[in-house]
Amino acid sequence: MQFSAQQIAGILNGTIEGNPDATVNALSKIEEGKPGSISFLANPAYTQYIYTSQASIIIVNKDFAPTAPVSATMIRVESAAAAFAKLLEMYNQVKLNKTGVSKQAYISDSAKVGDNLYLGEFAVISDNARIGNNVKIYPQVYVGDNVVIGDNTTLFAGVKLYSDTVIGKNCIIHSGTVIGSDGFRFEPQNEEGQRKVPQIGNVIIEDDVEIGANCAIDRATLGSTILRKGVKFDNLIHIAHNVEVGENSYLAACNVIAGSTKVGKNCMFSGQVGIVGHLQIADNTIITAQSGISKSITKPGEVYMGSPAFDANKYRKAYIHFRNLDGLAQRVDKLEKQNKQ
Amino acid sequence: MQFSAQQIAGILNGTIEGNPDATVNALSKIEEGKPGSISFLANPAYTQYIYTSQASIIIVNKDFAPTAPVSATMIRVESAAAAFAKLLEMYNQVKLNKTGVSKQAYISDSAKVGDNLYLGEFAVISDNARIGNNVKIYPQVYVGDNVVIGDNTTLFAGVKLYSDTVIGKNCIIHSGTVIGSDGFRFEPQNEEGQRKVPQIGNVIIEDDVEIGANCAIDRATLGSTILRKGVKFDNLIHIAHNVEVGENSYLAACNVIAGSTKVGKNCMFSGQVGIVGHLQIADNTIITAQSGISKSITKPGEVYMGSPAFDANKYRKAYIHFRNLDGLAQRVDKLEKQNKQ
Amino acid sequence: MQFSAQQIAGILNGTIEGNPDATVNALSKIEEGKPGSISFLANPAYTQYIYTSQASIIIVNKDFAPTAPVSATMIRVESAAAAFAKLLEMYNQVKLNKTGVSKQAYISDSAKVGDNLYLGEFAVISDNARIGNNVKIYPQVYVGDNVVIGDNTTLFAGVKLYSDTVIGKNCIIHSGTVIGSDGFRFEPQNEEGQRKVPQIGNVIIEDDVEIGANCAIDRATLGSTILRKGVKFDNLIHIAHNVEVGENSYLAACNVIAGSTKVGKNCMFSGQVGIVGHLQIADNTIITAQSGISKSITKPGEVYMGSPAFDANKYRKAYIHFRNLDGLAQRVDKLEKQNKQ
Repeated sequence: MQFSAQQIAGILNGTIEGNPDATVNALSKIEEGKPGSISFLANPAYTQYIYTSQASIIIVNKDFAPTAPVSATMIRVESAAAAFAKLLEMYNQVKLNKTGVSKQAYISDSAKVGDNLYLGEFAVISDNARIGNNVKIYPQVYVGDNVVIGDNTTLFAGVKLYSDTVIGKNCIIHSGTVIGSDGFRFEPQNEEGQRKVPQIGNVIIEDDVEIGANCAIDRATLGSTILRKGVKFDNLIHIAHNVEVGENSYLAACNVIAGSTKVGKNCMFSGQVGIVGHLQIADNTIITAQSGISKSITKPGEVYMGSPAFDANKYRKAYIHFRNLDGLAQRVDKLEKQNKQ
Repeated sequence: MQFSAQQIAGILNGTIEGNPDATVNALSKIEEGKPGSISFLANPAYTQYIYTSQASIIIVNKDFAPTAPVSATMIRVESAAAAFAKLLEMYNQVKLNKTGVSKQAYISDSAKVGDNLYLGEFAVISDNARIGNNVKIYPQVYVGDNVVIGDNTTLFAGVKLYSDTVIGKNCIIHSGTVIGSDGFRFEPQNEEGQRKVPQIGNVIIEDDVEIGANCAIDRATLGSTILRKGVKFDNLIHIAHNVEVGENSYLAACNVIAGSTKVGKNCMFSGQVGIVGHLQIADNTIITAQSGISKSITKPGEVYMGSPAFDANKYRKAYIHFRNLDGLAQRVDKLEKQNKQ
Repeated sequence: MQFSAQQIAGILNGTIEGNPDATVNALSKIEEGKPGSISFLANPAYTQYIYTSQASIIIVNKDFAPTAPVSATMIRVESAAAAFAKLLEMYNQVKLNKTGVSKQAYISDSAKVGDNLYLGEFAVISDNARIGNNVKIYPQVYVGDNVVIGDNTTLFAGVKLYSDTVIGKNCIIHSGTVIGSDGFRFEPQNEEGQRKVPQIGNVIIEDDVEIGANCAIDRATLGSTILRKGVKFDNLIHIAHNVEVGENSYLAACNVIAGSTKVGKNCMFSGQVGIVGHLQIADNTIITAQSGISKSITKPGEVYMGSPAFDANKYRKAYIHFRNLDGLAQRVDKLEKQNKQ
């Protein structure tokens, strides 16, 4: 796809300064701009790059006043950042604008699919599945029996949805993620060894949820494991049976939440956080990277750190002393010597 | 599937109190019971819910004496918990009762498969594979060359088994799990950069093993990586080349065991535990979440905590002081001032 | 494949001692040698095993002088270790010598593939993809639009490459690994909830890179996420958007590197290491297992430990005192009592 400065200025409602016939087919950072790419300048810290950037077109704020010649064609707009974000989104939509149902996909006779479905090669839609409108299912996805998928949801290549999973509208699920696998529950040892507790619940993902690549979200033993509206997951996250994650909570990569824990709304957990089972985590809780939560958190909006975690400021203070624990021990040695004398 | 109270009482050898024609098609927790579902009351702490539950049928212990009207049909049995577990298992069996070989699957001419195979769409069974009886292989599974799979084993959608993997009887392997990938071994740097050590061993999974979703279990360099009988793995676990995990050991999510380490029997590791390579871990060892084991454990039945880990009780005691390390430092400050005076 | 001692001696340029017609079809460790297998003795610590090993053939160093009878046929060579490594490599090459394009794979009309392609069942090569010569693509792999793959690269079963991914020559990518999924970036909350930042960059993997199973490597927001020449990854590693990993760096299992961090050359990170976003990590940095890096590392060749990490020697010293923090606290108690008196 090739666009001229004139076409882009039209889309962005901007004014051109330079060659209106300059064309681009890629988007770039201003400091990495190559001929044929379009970039933008919003952050004043990057102003220096506009004079050397090889981008063919650069979007700038209306009032940008260059102090040296700019070789690129400039397009002046109200907000360069917002205009560039709009271009990104358009580009993304075109890139992901897959349509059509592959003849090499499998759809059960008892499944019902909506309008405008994209179904890639070697994808499977199993018995009694219900797929909404404008859904995109990439190649090699597995949609199990009775699965429900809402409108405008995208499942990237290789996603696996076990039976009875429910996915809302406008969700994005990345490759390799598994939803609805059995929870990890076994009864106490008996003569024949441990006995598996059947996992017959399901997973419910509400609207506007995005889940990264290679996550694993277990079905409930009974009832549902639930990700509420607007939840966002990074990659490689483990969610155990009967967990619930509240609205708009953000979990970074490699989080682990054990069975039956309930996480509140608007929480933010950094990478590699672990939370033990059967806890309640209050709304707006922030947990720093690699922390381990071993007790319920009842007060909303607090920051936790450490393994086991406690108040992050207290942790940081303790950790400063830990770093110099050898020094502290030497001081105690000295005091003991003084007292002996 | 719809069942009446009469049918269920027959299966469970129970007596009906209420409408014998009440029907259900789902199982629920007593506190979440909806019309059309069957629940149970075993734990006295939940007794309050029986008077308000909307479940259509509730299984109760023989001697349960209600203190207020119960609207649901009750089925009295010897043990409500055991009876409900039996229903769960039956439900699970029906749910997973897949049969037949898809025409859209691939089976090599040199592979041999047993009786009553379920083989889903786009699954691959490669050259010289040997598949037992009553095996269920879901869609998009890959069974590599020379793989052996025992009777009654289930591989969920998208499992990948590299060549020469051996899986026992009655195993369950969840979606996305990879077994038999190359171990991470490279020879010391030479002129052409690091050189890969060929990984020509395999992975052996013994009987009654369950492995969660998106695990990665590497083949041995030479010989076998082995999971012994009855081992249970949660999701996203990494097992390196030549590791051995002993009978009935339980590993929670995101465990990492480095190369050649041997784990004993009946061990229980919580989430995000890491163990370095070439260690021996004694039987019945318990490791708390996020702990890191850096030395062999020779005494069986001990509990470890921390990174690097040591005795859990000692760790907890040390950690209490760590939390208040600022206080300890201030006390040392004060002692120093006192001694100066 | 069956080989005689005579054939193997020919390949290795060795001399036979014992039965030249002894045949083998497997490789084994000397201590696990079974009839029909070939082993080797290089490390003197294993000499004892040569007298009891049941291996049919054992490769030994030219000057090996047995002190008791050896039942196996021996092949004497310059270096037993090097000779056995050569056999391993040959065995590996034969094992992985897949060829041919499956009729049950999908190749877009606009894709271009090189000579001698192996393409397994139910693999997908999407629009405008460019595949080099001698590439092996196992079953159920997904190659997205515009993906470029260099000569001699192997993608094992189920690898997923999102659109625009670029893979170099001589790379190996293991099953379940996802490359090019969206980075985890959302704009600050607005009225409609958080807004996804389109991720329109890509991932570039240079030559001679090996990536383990079930890793997740996100595409850049703009520009590229890059793994430089010779990088080696173990399993279950998360790489966020716009990260760069320098030449010949080694990451063990379950590493997590957050957005835009740049890792230098020849680094070695042990398992479960986490690095926060927007950092610079100097060349030759070593990070111990489970450590968390929260600040840039500017001095090359240092060793880091802890979470947050600092100099490993200082950490170990501090940790010795941490283990006995209860003792230190008791000593302070005692000092306080002494001072009170």
